Amino acid sequence: MDVTGLAPAFREIVGADAVITDHQELRTYECDGLTSHAAVPGIVVLPTSADQVARIVRTCVAEGVPYVARGSGTGLSGGALPRADGVLIVTSRMRRVLGVDVANRIAVVEPGVVNLAVTRAASPSGYYYAPDPSSQQICSIGGNVAENSGGAHCLKYGFTVNHVLGLEIVTPQGELVRLGGPAVQYPGYDLVGAFVGSEGTLGIATEVTVRLLRAPEDVATLLAAFDSIDAAGACVSAIIAAGIIPAAIEMMDATAIAAVEAAVACGYPPGAAAVLIVEVDGPAAEVAAQLDQVRTLAAEAFDIRVAADDTERAAIWKGRKSAFAAIGHTSPSYIVQDGVVPRTALPAVLSRIETLSRDSGIAVANVFHAGDGNLHPLVMYDDKVAGETERAEEVSAAILDLCLSHGGSLTGEHGIGVDKSRYMPRMFSDADLDTMQLLRCAFDPGGLCNPGKVFPTPRLCGERPGHRKGVHPLAESGKAELL
Amino acid sequence: MDVTGLAPAFREIVGADAVITDHQELRTYECDGLTSHAAVPGIVVLPTSADQVARIVRTCVAEGVPYVARGSGTGLSGGALPRADGVLIVTSRMRRVLGVDVANRIAVVEPGVVNLAVTRAASPSGYYYAPDPSSQQICSIGGNVAENSGGAHCLKYGFTVNHVLGLEIVTPQGELVRLGGPAVQYPGYDLVGAFVGSEGTLGIATEVTVRLLRAPEDVATLLAAFDSIDAAGACVSAIIAAGIIPAAIEMMDATAIAAVEAAVACGYPPGAAAVLIVEVDGPAAEVAAQLDQVRTLAAEAFDIRVAADDTERAAIWKGRKSAFAAIGHTSPSYIVQDGVVPRTALPAVLSRIETLSRDSGIAVANVFHAGDGNLHPLVMYDDKVAGETERAEEVSAAILDLCLSHGGSLTGEHGIGVDKSRYMPRMFSDADLDTMQLLRCAFDPGGLCNPGKVFPTPRLCGERPGHRKGVHPLAESGKAELL
Repeated sequence: MDVTGLAPAFREIVGADAVITDHQELRTYECDGLTSHAAVPGIVVLPTSADQVARIVRTCVAEGVPYVARGSGTGLSGGALPRADGVLIVTSRMRRVLGVDVANRIAVVEPGVVNLAVTRAASPSGYYYAPDPSSQQICSIGGNVAENSGGAHCLKYGFTVNHVLGLEIVTPQGELVRLGGPAVQYPGYDLVGAFVGSEGTLGIATEVTVRLLRAPEDVATLLAAFDSIDAAGACVSAIIAAGIIPAAIEMMDATAIAAVEAAVACGYPPGAAAVLIVEVDGPAAEVAAQLDQVRTLAAEAFDIRVAADDTERAAIWKGRKSAFAAIGHTSPSYIVQDGVVPRTALPAVLSRIETLSRDSGIAVANVFHAGDGNLHPLVMYDDKVAGETERAEEVSAAILDLCLSHGGSLTGEHGIGVDKSRYMPRMFSDADLDTMQLLRCAFDPGGLCNPGKVFPTPRLCGERPGHRKGVHPLAESGKAELL
Repeated sequence: MDVTGLAPAFREIVGADAVITDHQELRTYECDGLTSHAAVPGIVVLPTSADQVARIVRTCVAEGVPYVARGSGTGLSGGALPRADGVLIVTSRMRRVLGVDVANRIAVVEPGVVNLAVTRAASPSGYYYAPDPSSQQICSIGGNVAENSGGAHCLKYGFTVNHVLGLEIVTPQGELVRLGGPAVQYPGYDLVGAFVGSEGTLGIATEVTVRLLRAPEDVATLLAAFDSIDAAGACVSAIIAAGIIPAAIEMMDATAIAAVEAAVACGYPPGAAAVLIVEVDGPAAEVAAQLDQVRTLAAEAFDIRVAADDTERAAIWKGRKSAFAAIGHTSPSYIVQDGVVPRTALPAVLSRIETLSRDSGIAVANVFHAGDGNLHPLVMYDDKVAGETERAEEVSAAILDLCLSHGGSLTGEHGIGVDKSRYMPRMFSDADLDTMQLLRCAFDPGGLCNPGKVFPTPRLCGERPGHRKGVHPLAESGKAELL
């Protein structure tokens, strides 16, 4: 069907000014941050309340029309890629901070609220919202919930899932339910945990209760420059082994440093093969003690600088935060890869990435959250040179395989979306994927809620995993014999 | 059927010495820590490997026989209560610590491993496993996973769910799958989060990967005695408001103090209406600074003692740790209640509990994790006095209602099990419960995996929530109108 036929029903729910059917306007929504994938949505609806979202979803379910939720559209894995035959539900008009309760350290917000706006609402009381994706000035809390977003300071403070206490959601069937809440424990299943990071496939968050943290008394930021990546990697391991969990440990290699120096002249020490940014925060006494320890553990660095004030701190971070854009100035095109390895595997993996780059002639810059082993290799290529795009994609895929072969993960914080669903079978057995699919099918038997995301080849929901083709999944996965 | 008929099949899987059918021996397993509920299991099987667990479960599924998993049997909500018509799968022979990887801060253990054994395995390297239920010398990690166990130090360090990184489980259908793992992020649904705390209804954990923490450099323990419960409660709020998250803040009221003094003579300050135990840990510099702050914030206390060494620290904790047993010496019978309220509601809730106690003539001692609002009222009664048991149960239920009316929870750390399933509708709407039931039915369509636990009136799994009796769940919950 042509989903524009639903426009009158949607106008009744949200009003005429909140339904978009004009093709030029619809094109604004054709992709999220993964610009390599685009599809103009059939229709866009902009609700302002949970009830409206529930009614929109129930209309879609009744008509058998697929629908996709979108916040600010900053996601990097295509999780909010629309469907030409479907409805795009945009939460940008659900932007109220519903409450800040400092005594109980919580804030309640609508899903379209921008990440940094939560901190702005809490900061007069000395509190803040910890997860800090690089896009925090524009990305929405609803999108953060969908993708379980991370950020540089997640090393110490954890990901979005560690800061969402409760949710009101519209289920894929259009029911309005509450998951979790502000109390320290909720009985029954922890569906908050399962919902956060489900990339829009288990429903749409309409209200989010987040944990607030007290702003730390003190912060210290150190930049250390090393002669080799191995020495920088060894320093990361030494810091963690000493029992210190800094707020952030970021690493950049020579290729990345060269790019940011060319772009923003941040004044990193010349000749460094790698720099580390180490930030510690907390009570002033702890910060002073930990900064001393970190200095000692970074003894192999040929240059160490500690920010004397916020201006110097901002200068140190400027290079890191400009890195992706700087690579865009250096290289006509690049792929932002996102993979995870155990911290201890960092030296081996980085050395192997260097070999992959040399052998393929495709430059790779490394800019990453070293503390938790979350790599962001930037695979640089020129799409006007015949064959380079393909070679870059091969290198990018080989890096993911490398992460998996070291016991890591396909994604650290950008999600699977449409971008990596084809790789899921490299990380999970059929039985593992079938088990996840149980949950998806239970919530969304019609397969209408953000279809085509996360899972490689969704089977029909009626099909019991483990009983297709008469083969037991244990036999398939090779994990156990049949009884 | 008489499930002892399955004995030959089970003997083939686990060997003859691991199948129990003798009634006297079976009686050993008739209850867990909730001794008010008992049922002699039809048969007990003691597997030693994940494959054996999977084969046992597949046998049960093939025969349509219910089964229950049990670790050490220390749970307080009857989560491991057996079925007379079912199989009890006991994990006590799965006790291997499979690996300790200090560089990546993880340990991999079998489910029957005792909680404290994880710390013992890691402590030579200076690491430990944080969740510390009072039963940690005997309770098993598998049971901790099932119940999402807490402990005094969960205020700072979080519950079991915050420390389990990965699981190998046998699903209710008998499939062996992996959920999560040691990497910092796993794509797809966070089924680790949903499994932890599912009280044995989503399958049986056969391997658990836990996070290890570095043992803190320093610990300080302070005992503060107050003239009133309100003053002690205000001190708790002041500490948290100051941005300090102590490792533990425990409170005991006068009734509890009297009981422990009578039982173990721990020498708490005489005449206290309430005592607080505040423990701070971390880098020595931080501990010293925080201890000073806590002293200042506890200025209203009429007596403050700081433990000078481990012996004095043990003496302070002795009273707290002996409290439940001490009440057993004071009162012929008692109910251990477990509820949660927002920290800020503590004074109002404690005052109301006092009124409930006075009006009913049923004494209530309060011993609890004040920092996270997790109450453990001990409702004392004499079951030989006509009507007292009923009145005690009424007071106990009224306390739960009180917690809920303040936006709290039915349980902080003991779980729902069989004990509180009847209260679930007081906390959750039908739509909320139906949403949880979606997950249970997806995993366990036959309803054979720990049936009768957690949920009040499980409906048939074929029945779609929201479509029974033609009534939309939104209409039932009163949250939204029908479209």
